[in-house]
Amino acid sequence: MWRWSDLLPFDGSADYPLPVGGTPLLVAARLNEWLGLKSLWLKDESRGPSGSNKDRATAITIVDARRKSMAVIACASTGNVASSLAVGAAAVGLTAVLFVSRDGVSPQKERFMRAFGATVVKVRGTYEDAYRLSEAACRTFGWYSRNTGINPLTVQGKKTVAFEIWEQLGRQVPDHVFVPVGDGVTIAALGLGFDELVRCGVADRIPRLIGVQADGAAPLAAAYRSGEQWKAGVANTYADGISVGDPQFGTEALVAVRKSRGEFVTVTDNQMRHAVALLAKCGMLFEPAGAASVAAIIRARAMLIDSGGRTVALLTGAGLKDPRWWPDERGATFEVSPDAELSALEAIGARVRQRMTTNHVVSL
Amino acid sequence: MWRWSDLLPFDGSADYPLPVGGTPLLVAARLNEWLGLKSLWLKDESRGPSGSNKDRATAITIVDARRKSMAVIACASTGNVASSLAVGAAAVGLTAVLFVSRDGVSPQKERFMRAFGATVVKVRGTYEDAYRLSEAACRTFGWYSRNTGINPLTVQGKKTVAFEIWEQLGRQVPDHVFVPVGDGVTIAALGLGFDELVRCGVADRIPRLIGVQADGAAPLAAAYRSGEQWKAGVANTYADGISVGDPQFGTEALVAVRKSRGEFVTVTDNQMRHAVALLAKCGMLFEPAGAASVAAIIRARAMLIDSGGRTVALLTGAGLKDPRWWPDERGATFEVSPDAELSALEAIGARVRQRMTTNHVVSL
Repeated sequence: MWRWSDLLPFDGSADYPLPVGGTPLLVAARLNEWLGLKSLWLKDESRGPSGSNKDRATAITIVDARRKSMAVIACASTGNVASSLAVGAAAVGLTAVLFVSRDGVSPQKERFMRAFGATVVKVRGTYEDAYRLSEAACRTFGWYSRNTGINPLTVQGKKTVAFEIWEQLGRQVPDHVFVPVGDGVTIAALGLGFDELVRCGVADRIPRLIGVQADGAAPLAAAYRSGEQWKAGVANTYADGISVGDPQFGTEALVAVRKSRGEFVTVTDNQMRHAVALLAKCGMLFEPAGAASVAAIIRARAMLIDSGGRTVALLTGAGLKDPRWWPDERGATFEVSPDAELSALEAIGARVRQRMTTNHVVSL
Repeated sequence: MWRWSDLLPFDGSADYPLPVGGTPLLVAARLNEWLGLKSLWLKDESRGPSGSNKDRATAITIVDARRKSMAVIACASTGNVASSLAVGAAAVGLTAVLFVSRDGVSPQKERFMRAFGATVVKVRGTYEDAYRLSEAACRTFGWYSRNTGINPLTVQGKKTVAFEIWEQLGRQVPDHVFVPVGDGVTIAALGLGFDELVRCGVADRIPRLIGVQADGAAPLAAAYRSGEQWKAGVANTYADGISVGDPQFGTEALVAVRKSRGEFVTVTDNQMRHAVALLAKCGMLFEPAGAASVAAIIRARAMLIDSGGRTVALLTGAGLKDPRWWPDERGATFEVSPDAELSALEAIGARVRQRMTTNHVVSL
């Protein structure tokens, strides 16, 4: 991502050892066929050092912390920010202290953080409680805060996704970009990135930004419709990555969507489950929050087919870090002895033929 | 990897939707400092669609299978080949049938395969038994075989790693390349790739290829020393990715190493555990087989410091797919209430300061 350092506060390429950014923008032909969409691209942010788009914000904040000679860097997180910070801090030898909700954090993501030597603080409360405590700790101990509400660099790092999409589409902006929204940083950063392309004179407009929230954690979607300030609520969705009831970057996210003449869409947990399964049928494994954008596109596909524009779905986080949400009903397992007779193989062959007739049926 | 299609049997770029290849060659400054090595690069093959270097061979065989109008593709695997094939087959709508050893396959990797709709056949025996059965099934049912011993395209796909290393080092070949060896395909493919660079006139030599086997699964290391044909044995190592007692590509691997005036090195499970932990301290999570090359470099570092040449370690597989082998003793977890008093934070701060003094001590 340091390729874009002319548009960043600094060039951190010499100070950060892990390659970040340059993720694929791909066409999933089978998905497009199922959806009846000709112009859908997937921006696959799962290929960073920790498998999420948080790695961009982590890289730039880590470099900043080192330039300021800070030894400890802290954050609050629903899971991916903390995973990303654990990786980035280890890469340069900083100490990471990660505040998470005890009941909200994925057990395997917590183990992932610890594998890199991070200190995990599990707060018996919500993500918002963890956020508040992490800020108190940073003030008390003089730790560097990677928190989005505090640290303006997170948006700077994340805006590079917009530059890449523009470049990968042949130096053109798409018509719609669907973005999962929790705290709101990612979508605000996309708005900033596309806006900078316009100000640089290389784009004549910004795309419509479509914010995607979970039904059970949709304060910004509600506020966007009512035109009022959002009301903090209790988040209730299985998609841990966007399970945020009181977004740290809500105002900026609303402004960015409004400025783009965009929209907010909500999706149910079941719709995200379906999107995860559909992407797996295309050979791609994302976590529920990561696949929320595709869930919203499935909902909105009639409108997208009508409008005919170019659509990009931002897929924010890999599925590999949390096996709880993998689709597991689809495959089949057989057990055979090593001296299996042809008859045992024959039974497997018959089942494979049978499965082939049903395996690729997709309902939307 | 299709950038290299002039040197491949065909260009599959239009037929394979998942981006493969173009993985980072990185310098882990902290690792080099700990090892006292100035010229060590890590080729990080964990960033492919399924997190291993098998994705290159999968891509080219999948395209071949489709060109031949095959509907079912099968393989035997210690885990990563099958994971990779599950992903690749889903991406294009082929049916994957994956033969694995019931007791050898990682439970989470099996779930991973099924998440993509693959059919998994667990054989109550070794990897070699699974291999034999998979070939019988391919013959019986006319399924396409992705097996290395049968399908010459796997080497073609994997040789592109050599081209990338050469290009990423500024169009120069390194002096040593350390490569984990199970079946032997990867190292034979590297030998072929570097050899083709010489034949193209863009390199004047091939690097010394250092094959790395687990102590408990080292038939090729033993054969290389004795100069005799290898003896098949029972594999006994926790590094499932290289737990192969009777390599399908052993002869080719021995020839490649010999031709490069290379060497075979063995590493213990504990040495691989240590390498996994050391890489995690650099922000990188690999599986034991993937980190075997670094384990061997730790062993050989005195020789490497003396020789002073440029060394590349091939890191073949991501750690994310199997949490059983993550280092977990390093991080710490605290639990606090959301209304934690400053005193509770103070205790955490004290522990963080204490950990900072010990956290970055590395023993080799």
